Amino acid sequence: MRIFPVRLSAASSSMASLAKMLDFYSGFNPSPLSIKQFMDFGQNACEKKSFIFLRKELPVRLANIMKEIALLPDNLLHTRSVSEVSSWYVKSFEDVLEYEKVEPTHENLQKFVRDLDLIRNRHNDVVQTMAQGVIEMKENEGGNVEAPTESSIQYFLDRLYMSRISIRMLINQHTLLFGSSPHSQGRHIGCLDPACDISDVVRDAYENARFLCDQYYLTSPALEIQQHSSTDEGIPIRTVYVPSHLYYMLFELFKNSMRAVVEHHNQDSCDSLPPLKVHICRGKEDICVKISDQGGGIPRSQSDQLFKYMYSTAPQPSKSDLHTVPLAGYGYGLPISRLYARYFHGDIVLLSCEGFGTDAIIYLKALSDEANELLPIFNKTSSKFYRATVPTGDWSNQSSDMNARQLNATISRRYSDLE
Amino acid sequence: MRIFPVRLSAASSSMASLAKMLDFYSGFNPSPLSIKQFMDFGQNACEKKSFIFLRKELPVRLANIMKEIALLPDNLLHTRSVSEVSSWYVKSFEDVLEYEKVEPTHENLQKFVRDLDLIRNRHNDVVQTMAQGVIEMKENEGGNVEAPTESSIQYFLDRLYMSRISIRMLINQHTLLFGSSPHSQGRHIGCLDPACDISDVVRDAYENARFLCDQYYLTSPALEIQQHSSTDEGIPIRTVYVPSHLYYMLFELFKNSMRAVVEHHNQDSCDSLPPLKVHICRGKEDICVKISDQGGGIPRSQSDQLFKYMYSTAPQPSKSDLHTVPLAGYGYGLPISRLYARYFHGDIVLLSCEGFGTDAIIYLKALSDEANELLPIFNKTSSKFYRATVPTGDWSNQSSDMNARQLNATISRRYSDLE
Repeated sequence: MRIFPVRLSAASSSMASLAKMLDFYSGFNPSPLSIKQFMDFGQNACEKKSFIFLRKELPVRLANIMKEIALLPDNLLHTRSVSEVSSWYVKSFEDVLEYEKVEPTHENLQKFVRDLDLIRNRHNDVVQTMAQGVIEMKENEGGNVEAPTESSIQYFLDRLYMSRISIRMLINQHTLLFGSSPHSQGRHIGCLDPACDISDVVRDAYENARFLCDQYYLTSPALEIQQHSSTDEGIPIRTVYVPSHLYYMLFELFKNSMRAVVEHHNQDSCDSLPPLKVHICRGKEDICVKISDQGGGIPRSQSDQLFKYMYSTAPQPSKSDLHTVPLAGYGYGLPISRLYARYFHGDIVLLSCEGFGTDAIIYLKALSDEANELLPIFNKTSSKFYRATVPTGDWSNQSSDMNARQLNATISRRYSDLE
Repeated sequence: MRIFPVRLSAASSSMASLAKMLDFYSGFNPSPLSIKQFMDFGQNACEKKSFIFLRKELPVRLANIMKEIALLPDNLLHTRSVSEVSSWYVKSFEDVLEYEKVEPTHENLQKFVRDLDLIRNRHNDVVQTMAQGVIEMKENEGGNVEAPTESSIQYFLDRLYMSRISIRMLINQHTLLFGSSPHSQGRHIGCLDPACDISDVVRDAYENARFLCDQYYLTSPALEIQQHSSTDEGIPIRTVYVPSHLYYMLFELFKNSMRAVVEHHNQDSCDSLPPLKVHICRGKEDICVKISDQGGGIPRSQSDQLFKYMYSTAPQPSKSDLHTVPLAGYGYGLPISRLYARYFHGDIVLLSCEGFGTDAIIYLKALSDEANELLPIFNKTSSKFYRATVPTGDWSNQSSDMNARQLNATISRRYSDLE
């Protein structure tokens, strides 16, 4: 008896080839660049080189995260919002693959820049839409999501958003350097400022947060900045960085501190608000920006939750709402701020004294060649995580905050799972 | 052909029965007590009750940790020092088992108290001797210990010392309450102070650290204390706690801060030393004691190491040396201080700004019924950990501090390993 070869429909054959390409490109590890490499390349920029790098690196970064999207729990994966996000990634992956073999002619290079713009804009709303998907899932589940699912989602969103930050960084550098209308950038190299005065960004972020605070509460705490430099590079403290990333973190932290200070002291029916104190310190390894408020602090059990996506229950305000939702504490602000910091191997740490106030520290790498991109890698370790089970404690746990801490450990654990 | 039953020698038969008892008692989970329970029991103390509880609970806690000693890597387990420690545990386990079935007569109860004293004294030098064992192992290994071994040892020592803290607490409460010469304890219940004025302990610890600092450096930073209470319980801030535990943590943190301040500012050939600022805050959940110094801080890459036992390379000073080794930063001081804090579900967190200074926060549970003992449990999870393999990263790691962080994650992960 003869077996007839199955004839694939156009659709399914393109699906099959997509899967093939995903397997191929997800087989490569992303290549992290350091801020120094971004700078060096930007200074003696060659569009052709950049094109040849990106047409390989972009599909690699896209494929690595798309493989993890596919591993999401079904009840999240099949929400309308997540399917939409997923379709954007497929489309963008295909768009970049069109350049896999084309010659880097002037026309192709120009079209490439235009397509990169399209891709970036297509993904503008990924954060809000994923958040919406999580809300849909919660609603379908009647609000109760199991701990393993929750930590899978936390793990995934950290990786999805980090991947997105890195892809937008690559796209922005290329389009800013080689875009058709390269608006004069002053000293900037793409979106990098080679001499970013940190106190300037601090003041910008403070002023804009204060505007929202005054608008909403009719009062706001003052700002006090101190700079300390242990090196001979002196004051003001400057570094090579992406000012918009630093601004994002600072604006988020200022909004949180201002809200805490005003609300804490309104309760105390106290008139003068204690100022927000900012210390900017340059060490040999790190630059630290420490924001200290006297907003009454938060208990440890809550601070464990601050970086969890699942705990922002409110629907995400749409972009247009943002300015009308003062200090809304735009749900994902803190975890995403921390991703911006970690993206170049910095960090954000909060330390709170319940009853008094909170210190938030932003760490940035002081040396641009140590400021490497931190990128998620799809491999056995990451895949394994999406099959997480409930952890069994090897310590006696009596209090809920320990369980919260347990969950954190489970999450942080994922940064170094076992093969 | 007949097989003759093997005749066990006295030694091996007692070995066999010991193993049987270890299996039996390690099958039970330790029963964590809260500070409130310690207080309630101490106030209407009944020696017989305490005896009956301890003759079961002590073997359970001993057996749980002895099972983990047996899982240590051979190159550590077979050092002279660790064998010695191990023999102490066997002896003490056997000592307590003698009371398994005896009647709680007056004589037996008196003998029990005396035996508890013997046991406590037998284990006085466990920390120094284990530390010596680690040094012996390092020397035998030519100084290079592999990451998995190192994290196993970190994991184990945290659990061994925590178990030891808890056992000494149980013993002290019994011997202080029922000892032959119960010296008048004032308001104290055993080693618990029902109205411990935190600022008093802060001043004690500061004064004694300052004495060492002056002796060694001929100068020392001043102390400034501020207290903040969000509750109506007001100032001074008092709580139910073991003053000696709090003192241990504070003395260690003050020694570190003073050394940092003096050495940092000597380098700057600056005359007046910035003071150590202490904030004591009472929240609803936590009491925080925050020590802020301007000692120049430490880079993130080092702060990852501060709580690692393996990084204290210097041989541990013997007790008699301690007073002649001013601010020696007695190698294990920080990790053990953190264990004291975590023992009753508090914590110690360090936050440093390289180039400026360090904040150390001690968290204590504000409510005595939430201040539960945190005890290591021997089970599949913990056993599994001693077979740890090298973690494979699921993030691109370019810098050594990330690897350090990875190792940390591996360790913290053990607080919530998978069954």
